[in-house]
Amino acid sequence: MKKRIAVIGHDRYAKQIHLDIAEEVGREIALRNGILICGGNNRGVANAAAKGAKQNNGLTIGISPDPDLTNVSKFVDIPILTGMGFARNQILAFSADALISIGGGVGTFCEMAYGYAYSKPIIVVKDLKGLPEPFIGKYLDDKKKVKIIGVENAKEAVKLAFKLTEKG
Amino acid sequence: MKKRIAVIGHDRYAKQIHLDIAEEVGREIALRNGILICGGNNRGVANAAAKGAKQNNGLTIGISPDPDLTNVSKFVDIPILTGMGFARNQILAFSADALISIGGGVGTFCEMAYGYAYSKPIIVVKDLKGLPEPFIGKYLDDKKKVKIIGVENAKEAVKLAFKLTEKG
Amino acid sequence: MKKRIAVIGHDRYAKQIHLDIAEEVGREIALRNGILICGGNNRGVANAAAKGAKQNNGLTIGISPDPDLTNVSKFVDIPILTGMGFARNQILAFSADALISIGGGVGTFCEMAYGYAYSKPIIVVKDLKGLPEPFIGKYLDDKKKVKIIGVENAKEAVKLAFKLTEKG
Amino acid sequence: MKKRIAVIGHDRYAKQIHLDIAEEVGREIALRNGILICGGNNRGVANAAAKGAKQNNGLTIGISPDPDLTNVSKFVDIPILTGMGFARNQILAFSADALISIGGGVGTFCEMAYGYAYSKPIIVVKDLKGLPEPFIGKYLDDKKKVKIIGVENAKEAVKLAFKLTEKG
Repeated sequence: MKKRIAVIGHDRYAKQIHLDIAEEVGREIALRNGILICGGNNRGVANAAAKGAKQNNGLTIGISPDPDLTNVSKFVDIPILTGMGFARNQILAFSADALISIGGGVGTFCEMAYGYAYSKPIIVVKDLKGLPEPFIGKYLDDKKKVKIIGVENAKEAVKLAFKLTEKG
Repeated sequence: MKKRIAVIGHDRYAKQIHLDIAEEVGREIALRNGILICGGNNRGVANAAAKGAKQNNGLTIGISPDPDLTNVSKFVDIPILTGMGFARNQILAFSADALISIGGGVGTFCEMAYGYAYSKPIIVVKDLKGLPEPFIGKYLDDKKKVKIIGVENAKEAVKLAFKLTEKG
Repeated sequence: MKKRIAVIGHDRYAKQIHLDIAEEVGREIALRNGILICGGNNRGVANAAAKGAKQNNGLTIGISPDPDLTNVSKFVDIPILTGMGFARNQILAFSADALISIGGGVGTFCEMAYGYAYSKPIIVVKDLKGLPEPFIGKYLDDKKKVKIIGVENAKEAVKLAFKLTEKG
Repeated sequence: MKKRIAVIGHDRYAKQIHLDIAEEVGREIALRNGILICGGNNRGVANAAAKGAKQNNGLTIGISPDPDLTNVSKFVDIPILTGMGFARNQILAFSADALISIGGGVGTFCEMAYGYAYSKPIIVVKDLKGLPEPFIGKYLDDKKKVKIIGVENAKEAVKLAFKLTEKG
């Protein structure tokens, strides 16, 4: 089974730096033959990551909050239309082998929380002022010894995501 | 965007005839370059349809009720792990362009109902004693003029699913 | 714990007869000290049943598809705001001890299906031309010996709902 | 409509201090004629808050992750059985007028995130080492000017929750 990597982060309020990093993360995931999972929207980190993956002919899955295609990114190959609003965050996190966060606010943090509950590796690109940033290097829960990992850039994020999802 | 066709029907209590038809439906969807969407379980119509699609190198999506891979079919390329039980029926129906039902009980009927609410074509393979069968040729809702359509066999089901999802 | 009885059925297209029966069902549930569960909307069977329950000072719960109060009935004491669209049908059925159906289309049938999966008693008021009607007296699933039960009127429906949820 | 106050926080790993505060918060909510909403489980902050509310004859709602009553607190009057796992966090937050957090880990933070998305007042009891604590006094999202508010004790938490949900 191919690796499924979720790329999460700023949506409506993404700045150019978030979009640039997301696009590069998408390209790198596709280069390594991974499947990109994103939130499906036609803007922000989700859209940019899917755009990048398609530049390298990657496969892109969008787990949308909506019941129809109106707001789905044109770079998404397979829209999963939940019609469940933010509750789709659970599905996005459960369906990924690892999560890469690029900025992000409360929704992104919520996705990290769902991923953490199932001990998925969570990688945060540094210096992007997202809500998850203060948690780099920490456990979210004392009982689970899984740290949130900070990385310097897109390439390092994807390299680490693949490394941490290899079976020992 | 490739066509996404949901194949639904008997799960735990599927008989050989359901499995044979599901497998052929899966093969036909892949032949026509469609994407198979199923409920993700490693048994019944979902498993057989995914098996068939893989015989023709099709792409298979499994919208699982579970939060992890334990019960997911090995023929599923991309597991969508909802962790929401039967509420995933909504997601399966919303994410498909058309639905093909092969037998099926209350869960299958529920998926048809979700699809119907968004006017998706619903095709029922005849003479399989499923719960949806009495609805062949009828409207489920007088206000929506979308009939449940009965077909004789797997090939006809898939041919019709593609025809009905073409843009006019 | 007080009995929780779900009242389901026609929403947008309810006729006066559906509303009258729903209101009486609501009154009867409250008279017997039960808790009314409905779909929460400010129209149709849900609204009428909640109105009836309040006439006898009953407690009313509305499991709404929406994330906010905009479309919630004023007769609902406790709105449960799911923001999950029709996926809330699962929650409505799981949360009830028994279901009473008054007319109804695909959504109602879907709620019955969720209830049936957990062997809840399902009672259908007769002669209301709803989608569930043809299933009166039948099993929805051969493996579960739970019949859909038809009744003549509101009083009989509520009486039976309480009887069938008594612990043996 | 009565105020609905959600009490969230440590579940499995709650210590006595979390339980004591939760119980007092429950009592205070009931004293002020509010409705308690909790996660429904028979342990941790949810159970203790419901226990406290019942000591003052309050009404208690439990939004359970499960499809049945097995793990539901005996202090819950009305179990809402979602069968959706942690996705029920969205429902808990949407259904409350305000949230009070007593300790808590990733699940609690996720509930706060859902509440924040709809601008609900979020009150965190201080000095309990929960994951939400570092966010006291901050905005979770720069675009929404809603601060997470820290309070010293149970009484102050409930007093503030009612004050902040009054209509201006």
